[in-house]
Amino acid sequence: MELELTDVSALACCPPMVDEALTEAAAVDLARGFKALGDPVRLRLLSMIAARGGNEVCVCDLTDAFAVKGPTISHHLRVLREAGLIDCERRGTWVYYWVIPSALAPLSQLLDTSALTPTA
Amino acid sequence: MELELTDVSALACCPPMVDEALTEAAAVDLARGFKALGDPVRLRLLSMIAARGGNEVCVCDLTDAFAVKGPTISHHLRVLREAGLIDCERRGTWVYYWVIPSALAPLSQLLDTSALTPTA
Repeated sequence: MELELTDVSALACCPPMVDEALTEAAAVDLARGFKALGDPVRLRLLSMIAARGGNEVCVCDLTDAFAVKGPTISHHLRVLREAGLIDCERRGTWVYYWVIPSALAPLSQLLDTSALTPTA
Repeated sequence: MELELTDVSALACCPPMVDEALTEAAAVDLARGFKALGDPVRLRLLSMIAARGGNEVCVCDLTDAFAVKGPTISHHLRVLREAGLIDCERRGTWVYYWVIPSALAPLSQLLDTSALTPTA
C-alpha cells in the first residue's frame, strides 16, 4: 500500500476554537469525528492503527488486545471508517487498516489550547 | 473570576497516538471527553466559550445563537461540565462558564499527527 499524502493546506479551514468560534456547518462535520472517538474500544483501535505511523495494520493484529469478540471489533472499525478517520483494503483472508492523518489533524487543531496555556 | 492555571506538566501523560498506542485506562478516560464533543450543539457551545480565551461567558450570551431552547442548552452545558471540559459559577440571575484548557490539551495532543504529516 502507498501512503496517500493529502494536501494539508486545506486544513487551514479549522483554527483553534480558542481563536474563533465554530460555524454551525463546521460543528456538524467535526462532531461526527469526535463522536466516533467517544468510545474506549474505538479510541484504542484507532490508537493501535495510528501507532504504526502511516503503515497499515492487519485486523488479525488488532483483535487479541480486546476482551470483546471479532464482530464487535469489526463494528467499531466500520464506525471509524464511516467517520473518515481510517481506511482499509481487503487482501485475501484479512482486512488491512491505516489511519488518515488529514482527518485527525483538524480535530487536534480545533482543541489546541497552546494560546491559552503558558509554557512556563 | 480568576483564571486558574493548571500544572501542565501533568499532561506529559498523553503522547500523540501516532507515537504510542493508548492503554485501556487512558482510553476510558479520554473517550469520555471525546463523547462530550460528539454533538454539534455541544461543540459549538464549547467553541463559543473557548473563543473568549480564558475569560468567562454568561449563559445569557450563549443561547441566542441556537434554535434549541434554554433547557436543551443547559443540558448540553451540563454534559460538557461533567466531562470536565468547562466549569461554571452562578452569580445572581446568570451562570457564567469558562473553558478548562488543561482538559482540552490532552485530547488535542492525542490526535496530533504532525509526526506523520510532512510540512512541505
